[in-house]
Amino acid sequence: MTIQVKGYAAFAPDKPLSAFDFERRDCGDNDIEIDILYCGVCHSDLHQARNDWHFSTYPMVPGHEIVGRVVKVGKNVTKFKIGDLAGIGCMVDSCGHCEPCQHDLENYCENGNTQTYNDTHKYGTGEPTYGGYSTRYVVKDAFACHVPENLDIKAVAPLLCAGITTYSPLRHWKVGKGMKVAVIGLGGLGHMAIKFAVAMGAEVSLFTRSPNKFDDAKKLGVHHIVLSTDDAQMQAAKNQFEVIIDTVPYAHDLRPYIPTLSLDGTIVLVGLFGGEVEANTASMFLGRRSIAGSCIGGIAETQEMLDFCGEHNIVPDVEMIDMQYINEAYERMLKSDVKYRFVIDMQSLK
Amino acid sequence: MTIQVKGYAAFAPDKPLSAFDFERRDCGDNDIEIDILYCGVCHSDLHQARNDWHFSTYPMVPGHEIVGRVVKVGKNVTKFKIGDLAGIGCMVDSCGHCEPCQHDLENYCENGNTQTYNDTHKYGTGEPTYGGYSTRYVVKDAFACHVPENLDIKAVAPLLCAGITTYSPLRHWKVGKGMKVAVIGLGGLGHMAIKFAVAMGAEVSLFTRSPNKFDDAKKLGVHHIVLSTDDAQMQAAKNQFEVIIDTVPYAHDLRPYIPTLSLDGTIVLVGLFGGEVEANTASMFLGRRSIAGSCIGGIAETQEMLDFCGEHNIVPDVEMIDMQYINEAYERMLKSDVKYRFVIDMQSLK
Repeated sequence: MTIQVKGYAAFAPDKPLSAFDFERRDCGDNDIEIDILYCGVCHSDLHQARNDWHFSTYPMVPGHEIVGRVVKVGKNVTKFKIGDLAGIGCMVDSCGHCEPCQHDLENYCENGNTQTYNDTHKYGTGEPTYGGYSTRYVVKDAFACHVPENLDIKAVAPLLCAGITTYSPLRHWKVGKGMKVAVIGLGGLGHMAIKFAVAMGAEVSLFTRSPNKFDDAKKLGVHHIVLSTDDAQMQAAKNQFEVIIDTVPYAHDLRPYIPTLSLDGTIVLVGLFGGEVEANTASMFLGRRSIAGSCIGGIAETQEMLDFCGEHNIVPDVEMIDMQYINEAYERMLKSDVKYRFVIDMQSLK
Repeated sequence: MTIQVKGYAAFAPDKPLSAFDFERRDCGDNDIEIDILYCGVCHSDLHQARNDWHFSTYPMVPGHEIVGRVVKVGKNVTKFKIGDLAGIGCMVDSCGHCEPCQHDLENYCENGNTQTYNDTHKYGTGEPTYGGYSTRYVVKDAFACHVPENLDIKAVAPLLCAGITTYSPLRHWKVGKGMKVAVIGLGGLGHMAIKFAVAMGAEVSLFTRSPNKFDDAKKLGVHHIVLSTDDAQMQAAKNQFEVIIDTVPYAHDLRPYIPTLSLDGTIVLVGLFGGEVEANTASMFLGRRSIAGSCIGGIAETQEMLDFCGEHNIVPDVEMIDMQYINEAYERMLKSDVKYRFVIDMQSLK
């Protein structure tokens, strides 16, 4: 049994996205079916639609920042009931038995989790996964999260990727009151890292190359701004930061930033998946500094993040678009012309 | 007041070392004067003698793995008495007031510690520092360590650099019973990392490109050997190691090693000072893995390491040489033709 779904798909790396009707599995005993209300537009959607990472399969329905209402629940499901808000992020399944899976870290599944799109249900029946640029999603209840009802639901979707991607390393590296934290880059990820770090009580600095971002950064609660093109400011920032969240999505030189870490400080890369690290060991040795990578978060931590957002009333700053606008949105993302995340109103597809 | 000292010095990057008589300050109120018995030959001696790091000053008396007997103590000194064994490592002073210095981490002094040679007494009277390829050293008592009398004194010297360089990261990254640890490279640093990790109760693997090192590695207590040129062995080692101590002293590709780290594992670089890091972020993201640097250890931890060696009867494997053999020793080091550290018997200079 299957259900009919409307969506938007990429059919080739160099073609615009266009309408695509397809089928999903019917809601199984452990599944919930979600009527998608909103889907965020992640920079990685664009990378994958255009095959920048060389593992795209077509047709591809992107979208892994999904929020909607539960319209059907399987007979074993107790986690959700019909009418609940539910969110789906970057993954919809994992092996379930490796060490990370056993410790609520399905995001680090050693056998590879199942991505929400551009993947196959490898632990299930093997069909392709299609993402959230669509009207419905059927997912194992264990891989969906509850969304606090008090939040502005239109803006919630990007929490499922941009949110957890920045929340998880801040928690893992124990950011809290009074800690000095810096964020590199003010985009979809960067602005969430700032909101979270501020809410956690940290003293937050932003590294940016653009003086025209100063006002926006201040509005987000940033305490200090370091113009990374200014040698004197970079020099003055030496030995400062216990944690730097580096959200830059393209290859860049880490050499200028590492000396700004404090003793035992860590620069955590969250934006540059599959890029090359450029760094010199001298400033790593002299301060026992680390470079780390971090990749989204587990389902339990994603729920924790959503609850944290509910408590602190945190959502991303978003620009709402219709599904039909997606190709223009991609072009604008390439020019960083969005504050800070596009969210598709799926009503436009219904 | 000064004392007369005999030594061996480099006079230019491209000249062999030769005899050099010089003066040191007389033993001050907080100083001890050490009659040097043995001095280890570190690979960095060679780098600095030949100005590989571009900050050498000449004449340069190398040597920062120094063991000897105290022959004089200043009037404020209570830490040592005449006749005690004492060791000096890579540094002989630091600013004393920065955050790391306040926490017994003079090795990470933010204002720069004073190196045992090829430096100046910048927190003192400004004269050059001359190292341990010499008959006497005068040092602040706070920067000398006690040497357990039960150890084979001829072999102790390299503990002051090769020892603490590998001991400190093993402690900092909490290596203990049952942990899976790997060491890259079997030289002066590598063989000490193995001895320490084994003594700490870890399950120790060696990465090596040389099958002819297998027997030696087994003798040192290594539990597993991974031939790093064998793809199948590298594949089988995936997700294994909580800590990897990378002792390789030249630029090398980290890409093959990072996937062998476990979730949250760290590869600690201790051999490659001032080199470029080559790594790809994909395997760092997928496992929250880190690359870190570590630089010797503080004085308190150096003492802890020496005491640990006393308890566990650990010393490096050394080859004793006369001072006059140093230029040949350097040539052999360049060919990795030493197991595993040359130690100069300073009697040859007296």
